[in-house]
Amino acid sequence: MKQTTVARRKLFSTAHLYRQSKFSHAENLAHFGACFSEHGHGHNYVIVVELAGEIDQQTGLIMNLTDLDQWLTDVVSPLDHHHVNFDVPEFQDTVPTTENLALYCRTRLLRRLQTEKAPLQLVSLKLYETDDLWVEITE
Amino acid sequence: MKQTTVARRKLFSTAHLYRQSKFSHAENLAHFGACFSEHGHGHNYVIVVELAGEIDQQTGLIMNLTDLDQWLTDVVSPLDHHHVNFDVPEFQDTVPTTENLALYCRTRLLRRLQTEKAPLQLVSLKLYETDDLWVEITE
Amino acid sequence: MKQTTVARRKLFSTAHLYRQSKFSHAENLAHFGACFSEHGHGHNYVIVVELAGEIDQQTGLIMNLTDLDQWLTDVVSPLDHHHVNFDVPEFQDTVPTTENLALYCRTRLLRRLQTEKAPLQLVSLKLYETDDLWVEITE
Amino acid sequence: MKQTTVARRKLFSTAHLYRQSKFSHAENLAHFGACFSEHGHGHNYVIVVELAGEIDQQTGLIMNLTDLDQWLTDVVSPLDHHHVNFDVPEFQDTVPTTENLALYCRTRLLRRLQTEKAPLQLVSLKLYETDDLWVEITE
Amino acid sequence: MKQTTVARRKLFSTAHLYRQSKFSHAENLAHFGACFSEHGHGHNYVIVVELAGEIDQQTGLIMNLTDLDQWLTDVVSPLDHHHVNFDVPEFQDTVPTTENLALYCRTRLLRRLQTEKAPLQLVSLKLYETDDLWVEITE
Amino acid sequence: MKQTTVARRKLFSTAHLYRQSKFSHAENLAHFGACFSEHGHGHNYVIVVELAGEIDQQTGLIMNLTDLDQWLTDVVSPLDHHHVNFDVPEFQDTVPTTENLALYCRTRLLRRLQTEKAPLQLVSLKLYETDDLWVEITE
Repeated sequence: MKQTTVARRKLFSTAHLYRQSKFSHAENLAHFGACFSEHGHGHNYVIVVELAGEIDQQTGLIMNLTDLDQWLTDVVSPLDHHHVNFDVPEFQDTVPTTENLALYCRTRLLRRLQTEKAPLQLVSLKLYETDDLWVEITE
Repeated sequence: MKQTTVARRKLFSTAHLYRQSKFSHAENLAHFGACFSEHGHGHNYVIVVELAGEIDQQTGLIMNLTDLDQWLTDVVSPLDHHHVNFDVPEFQDTVPTTENLALYCRTRLLRRLQTEKAPLQLVSLKLYETDDLWVEITE
Repeated sequence: MKQTTVARRKLFSTAHLYRQSKFSHAENLAHFGACFSEHGHGHNYVIVVELAGEIDQQTGLIMNLTDLDQWLTDVVSPLDHHHVNFDVPEFQDTVPTTENLALYCRTRLLRRLQTEKAPLQLVSLKLYETDDLWVEITE
Repeated sequence: MKQTTVARRKLFSTAHLYRQSKFSHAENLAHFGACFSEHGHGHNYVIVVELAGEIDQQTGLIMNLTDLDQWLTDVVSPLDHHHVNFDVPEFQDTVPTTENLALYCRTRLLRRLQTEKAPLQLVSLKLYETDDLWVEITE
Repeated sequence: MKQTTVARRKLFSTAHLYRQSKFSHAENLAHFGACFSEHGHGHNYVIVVELAGEIDQQTGLIMNLTDLDQWLTDVVSPLDHHHVNFDVPEFQDTVPTTENLALYCRTRLLRRLQTEKAPLQLVSLKLYETDDLWVEITE
Repeated sequence: MKQTTVARRKLFSTAHLYRQSKFSHAENLAHFGACFSEHGHGHNYVIVVELAGEIDQQTGLIMNLTDLDQWLTDVVSPLDHHHVNFDVPEFQDTVPTTENLALYCRTRLLRRLQTEKAPLQLVSLKLYETDDLWVEITE
């Protein structure tokens, strides 16, 4: 009945701005406040992923950390040290809120797990914008 | 199937003391140790709320943070910079343990969500007394 | 429907090394990298346990913290300030990964809860090797 | 020329309120805001002391930690789990600001170092009210 | 002989990019790596200022926190929720490294202290780009 | 007059034990308590170095971080993922206390700075054994 998960935490640095092209200037300001601007601002984002799997009887590990670290690096590489509004096609028409950035990371991670045929289930993905604000997607 | 939540963390500063009027002095001491005293002591409490909701297609947000921050400020305002045993009627006869303070915050937050007709579900409320001790109420 | 849990966090300091005796030197190196060595290395582990129970109407507590702290101290005492590969019989043939150390702590805690006839349910046990890597066992 | 110091960090929990009896109600409010109240509020204070000394050639230690921990426990014991305005004579007429609480701890620590004839120099004492506000006394 | 300082910590969110117009593309890449890009990236910066002053005998405070908070907010306001390369004139020709951002904040804070005729001495200003990298200017 | 420093923080994982061969068993126990054992225990050490230097007018940097990171990695590499008592010659007859480990790191860093002819002055080196205990060597 019990479930064992391994969790990995990784920091990355991203710029973004909140602007909905369908909104007027006043509406953008009302919805997004200081996050609505021409050039943007940025954060040290922290991603935490929790993966469930079987503990290998010989290694005692749910999965090899070197591989997991590579997958996570690849997942966030389009965001890390980039300005998502200008550099990432998925955010041309989508506001890069913590919610949407978390969904973006989740899609990429699920795809990678599938490609790698990893015998792992994503259980939860958290994305922290600051210590005081984060989004969690629970499967 | 998946659920998306937004979490918000907020600090507040409160004094309290543990004393059950139905207990003898010796019983109070046995149950509450150093937390049983005449004038009390205090903590920097940290509250973390997790709320589930739909991500708005246009804003990319589960909810407006300015509103959420106001609600949380109002939820903890009777506790923040107060001595709960003397200042808060609900704790005249109830020991203000982390458990009971968490329940108090939960009641106030649920009531506010209802008043605001917020299309949000409270998923979890955590109250930290220190980094080493906290209570979580999961809905 | 809602569940209330109390969580307690405790640090301990342990040495370990990863080596599977059934593996060749090359296999050990491939699976365990820098964690495979003759004498080992160490960590400040952090254990977090979450326990569900009824809030006592008089004390306002799910359980007495003095007792819980003693149980946790006893649970980790064979690991704390020890080298698990050399000092702990359970890890003579088992690789002391975070996964296996978490299982070891869980077994000891469940046994203690039973011995003490504690009206508490273990909900989750987390073991952090660093701030960036941890294992969680959810019941 | 170089100086080696050992630093120790310790948490304690205290209630206080800011009120200067020489001030009018309006003046107290103007100077102290929410910290001015009848019954007070509280914090998890963190004290950090840095002590300089010679490294013992045989033990490799500047000082024995068991002793240092006892001294620190004694230094903060009148404050820990107390309401300083009501329980500590020194704060009957003195506002228990972080500044004054730090001075109080410093006086007690210096006296103890002298009593113990400790061959140590206090270099710095920090007192944190929160992660965002602290006072440091540098000798 | 001893010195008493009050320290205040504040977070702000900024985007930047490293590019020296006098450098070739290859030189910029060699000096700045991933920090050299067209649109930039960002961080949650943390500023910590330490100010020395006399403790007021009546209030017990080195200075009023409400004022200090306002000054700090004003000091970082051109950076907070901005992209310094595009929004801040001082960084049109100056690379917005942590070093230069710290100098910028120091200049603004010293000017404000002077304007306010604050009887305070700036002792140290730290600017954290992440938990693992920061710059300190000590007076 | 003012001094600008850049600080870098790095984690490493080490096992050690405290035993002075000149001491009897009873003396070792009296001086070192739980740190005296046959096989040792371990910690996640954190090293923080602060280096003073001139800010380069063109790059805006005191020094290139890629280089500094490499130097730090090399400085701690004999300790990281090792058991210092068994793996590091310098600690065959020297107790690997935080004090002595800090001195060891300082010697290696100063030598490297000299080898690299780095126009930098080491200002301070801190070594944290836990969040609650650290040693600082100030030049």
